[in-house]
Amino acid sequence: MVTAETADESVDRRLLRGARSRRAVTGRAVEIASLDGLDGLSFGRLADDLDISKAGIQTLFRTKEKLQLATVEAAQEAFVDAVVRPARDSRAGVARLRALVDGWIDYAVQPLFPGGCFWGANLPIFDSRPGPVRDALLRQQRAWVTTLATQFRRAVAAGEIADLDPDAAAFQVSAVLHAVNLALRLGDGDSVTMARRVVDGLLAPAA
Amino acid sequence: MVTAETADESVDRRLLRGARSRRAVTGRAVEIASLDGLDGLSFGRLADDLDISKAGIQTLFRTKEKLQLATVEAAQEAFVDAVVRPARDSRAGVARLRALVDGWIDYAVQPLFPGGCFWGANLPIFDSRPGPVRDALLRQQRAWVTTLATQFRRAVAAGEIADLDPDAAAFQVSAVLHAVNLALRLGDGDSVTMARRVVDGLLAPAA
Repeated sequence: MVTAETADESVDRRLLRGARSRRAVTGRAVEIASLDGLDGLSFGRLADDLDISKAGIQTLFRTKEKLQLATVEAAQEAFVDAVVRPARDSRAGVARLRALVDGWIDYAVQPLFPGGCFWGANLPIFDSRPGPVRDALLRQQRAWVTTLATQFRRAVAAGEIADLDPDAAAFQVSAVLHAVNLALRLGDGDSVTMARRVVDGLLAPAA
Repeated sequence: MVTAETADESVDRRLLRGARSRRAVTGRAVEIASLDGLDGLSFGRLADDLDISKAGIQTLFRTKEKLQLATVEAAQEAFVDAVVRPARDSRAGVARLRALVDGWIDYAVQPLFPGGCFWGANLPIFDSRPGPVRDALLRQQRAWVTTLATQFRRAVAAGEIADLDPDAAAFQVSAVLHAVNLALRLGDGDSVTMARRVVDGLLAPAA
């Protein structure tokens, strides 16, 4: 006999299974998209890779664009967990900026995703294609630069570093880190040293 | 009657026609690849766009990889003509660095190619794909950074600017210019001002 309670439990279990499947699919999708870009995603390829049915994946995500958007969100969550959240343990200002930069370099060197930086791989492809995927990628990239700018502002306000334009400094750090990511993919590790030198210059104590 | 002379003339004419066709095809191919990447190239699409036969294009380039390599070379030639060669009119050191940076910003703002910087569009796609196309893109990107580093070295040697690491400075300028290109594609023009500020900082007269 199906009581109200067991019916609820069955719905819960189904939702839980759906959430787990979504996570498995987006996890693999982030890996693929870091290597081959979000264009490289397809229901068929994911079904093969994960050994689950293509129809099941289609039921979960419905359209390729929705799959791409879910992938972009999953990448953002993984990035925040790996780079942004741990840096919150460091004091606002210079210490947190160093933690953010170190975390970002680890994220590119390790790397967190097999193809390196997810935004480095996908923004150049989507920059000429207006739409929700481009908007999501852009929003996330801006959130990262804003995070850096906020900490530069705190560092200047606290007199830790010379008076500089926090937005320009954040733009510069973000640009250099993206160049590091590309250089690492191309086998050029010297870029890490050069990037650290640029950041050290920006974070030099106020004279 | 076909004399030796007329046969030669006919060969010359055919070679000339072939060279002109190649240039027409690679010119269009550079435009496509700046927007959709070198993966977006196909004999069929080029034949449609240029209203010539697909078989003719195939005879000229043989394989997709050879077409991609010819496209990469054509992009490099156009870039050198637009940015590098005109800067040679300026005196080596700071003046030539300013000319190179101004030329590059124009190249991205105008833009020379409809999708903006050719290397910004294609290096992130090919960075995980070893092969002759990646090697050619990488060689060209390095040539640009070396051009900048050489002029930083001259500027330091002449005492025009403070003693800095020319390779790190060149890396930094290249990184910031690539960030400008991406920001412009995404509709953010403030990046040009921020990039100029970074360059001004590096080119400040020695104290």
